Amino acid sequence: MTVLEKIKKNIGPKLDIKNGRIDLSHGSGGRASTQLIEQLFLPAFNNQFLNQQDDAALFSVSAGKMVVTTDAHVITPLFFPGGDIGSLSVNGTVNDLASSGAKPLYLTASFILEEGLALCDLKKIVLSMAAAAKLADVLIIAGDTKVVERGKGDGVFITTTGVGVVPNEVNISGNKAKPGDKIIVSGFIGDHGVAIMAHRNNLGFSTKIQSDTNPLHDLVAKMITAVPEIHCMRDPTRGGLATTLNELAQQSAVGMMIDESKIPVRCEVASACELLGLDALYVANEGKLVVICDNKDADHLVSVMRLHPFGSESQIIGEVIADERCFVQLKTRLGGMRIIDRLYGEQLPRIC
Amino acid sequence: MTVLEKIKKNIGPKLDIKNGRIDLSHGSGGRASTQLIEQLFLPAFNNQFLNQQDDAALFSVSAGKMVVTTDAHVITPLFFPGGDIGSLSVNGTVNDLASSGAKPLYLTASFILEEGLALCDLKKIVLSMAAAAKLADVLIIAGDTKVVERGKGDGVFITTTGVGVVPNEVNISGNKAKPGDKIIVSGFIGDHGVAIMAHRNNLGFSTKIQSDTNPLHDLVAKMITAVPEIHCMRDPTRGGLATTLNELAQQSAVGMMIDESKIPVRCEVASACELLGLDALYVANEGKLVVICDNKDADHLVSVMRLHPFGSESQIIGEVIADERCFVQLKTRLGGMRIIDRLYGEQLPRIC
Repeated sequence: MTVLEKIKKNIGPKLDIKNGRIDLSHGSGGRASTQLIEQLFLPAFNNQFLNQQDDAALFSVSAGKMVVTTDAHVITPLFFPGGDIGSLSVNGTVNDLASSGAKPLYLTASFILEEGLALCDLKKIVLSMAAAAKLADVLIIAGDTKVVERGKGDGVFITTTGVGVVPNEVNISGNKAKPGDKIIVSGFIGDHGVAIMAHRNNLGFSTKIQSDTNPLHDLVAKMITAVPEIHCMRDPTRGGLATTLNELAQQSAVGMMIDESKIPVRCEVASACELLGLDALYVANEGKLVVICDNKDADHLVSVMRLHPFGSESQIIGEVIADERCFVQLKTRLGGMRIIDRLYGEQLPRIC
Repeated sequence: MTVLEKIKKNIGPKLDIKNGRIDLSHGSGGRASTQLIEQLFLPAFNNQFLNQQDDAALFSVSAGKMVVTTDAHVITPLFFPGGDIGSLSVNGTVNDLASSGAKPLYLTASFILEEGLALCDLKKIVLSMAAAAKLADVLIIAGDTKVVERGKGDGVFITTTGVGVVPNEVNISGNKAKPGDKIIVSGFIGDHGVAIMAHRNNLGFSTKIQSDTNPLHDLVAKMITAVPEIHCMRDPTRGGLATTLNELAQQSAVGMMIDESKIPVRCEVASACELLGLDALYVANEGKLVVICDNKDADHLVSVMRLHPFGSESQIIGEVIADERCFVQLKTRLGGMRIIDRLYGEQLPRIC
């Protein structure tokens, strides 16, 4: 008998998913917690590791390089055009693993639930996580649930942590950009942030722009096969493209020269940014990559990226230059030049 | 120049730790986030992995068995007799790794901060985490910080995820208890829960009872050296000893017979429980182990445990019996017998 069959046989009182709400007992470790685990989490995430039902999940590894990364997700609203906090929390961590060159393997998920959360909303989120994990070919192998009183949380916060393996020949890091390298973006920027903002403010164009939340592991795997010597790779989430470029410039102690006319931005996103007073360069993405590679590899890499659905709009947007001030400079469409600095804060809070 | 020296050289405006407070910009990924990372987290947790400053931390592994575990910490109050949310969040995850028989290696830490949190409180918590990590011989190698609006969180929530390696000869799981096995507890139960409860309610005996939050990795390492064939091991946190015994009984499909007179409970804890209407069997612990091993190994194991400061009050409290109903039964001091069931909820919410 499998663990799930055993649970089904011994199941206690059934969770009332349709009308039920989270209360403090669901975070207690007692029977109510068990109900939630056995009737919601285990069936959704079903895998041999989680089914061990111990406090830590055991798995085997081969000798080599591994990566670990963690992200708390506090996005509001919980459901938005193109995704929800569940898919976002899986894709966000999968992409942090992938952009280090790793094959994502396992995730853990920790939930902080607010008393009063509708169980049907939680179920939607959990099923969305399960679907995203399947798509990203990762298993959610350990988890935890806590509940805080009404007014001490905000529906659901989800922290996901991921582990992955890095092929031996891959050596990607933010400190490897060299003058002469090309800078590539994998597609339209700003979709996620604008989708959230439009939805939050009910601006009425919400049906057009969707979050780009997507898992990038497969795109990255194909890129690495084509060009194992990629220098830097990062997903430009909070703070957008501008912030990621500045991080990489500082980490590598180089400058960058970017061409505004080459940066892919959807018309709808550009208009929305104008309307909302945002700069698309600083708007969050959840399914894009910034990649830096040797000049000689750039065209080949872009052509490989364009064959993938999540990289079909890839563009070389500029190059790395020597600059000890580590400035990121933008050639504007009008032929001017401006420095793209980091912002102090974010244009939009709670975007991921 | 090390990463820390480089940061020190290029440091921007200084964080005002004494008077400053967290605002939404600290969770933005922009300059304010960088300030927090470079001036608070990196110096406190300083290690080569975190200093890679990539979105995922890279480390090498040997072929073998690994474990991963995650826990969200939402305890209130943030500071309590014997510890704080920082040390608790490290020890909690270290103990989940250790009780699976692993040597804890690396942790990740994800912070959800509430707008308005005093930076001096955050610093205290971060330094406490760093000290706890040092004591537990683990490195905090990746992290994330998000900020939510005032009234959407509660000061600080910390999710820690840990990875560790399990020696090949070790094979511990909750499903390995067999009739005839002995059940051991590593010391006084209920200290953590009663310390928190007393402190919350200002009951005035708070100076006497302290949380038992402690890392158990070293105790476990010595136990495994002495008896590699330990069957089950778990730290009885939320829900206390009673809940953990029930979990193990159900996972192993066995019953248990426990002797009340053998269970170590401090007088102060017993009195406090009486006063507060709690049952010590269900009160949370943060530095204790429940261990199940073969009858022939039990005395030796207890003698080894007693040599360790965190196991000095270890006791054999009962034994595993055949029982397809999986009941945990207690022989009371008065000679009676009662079934120790799981509670529906928790006697105390937000205890860890």
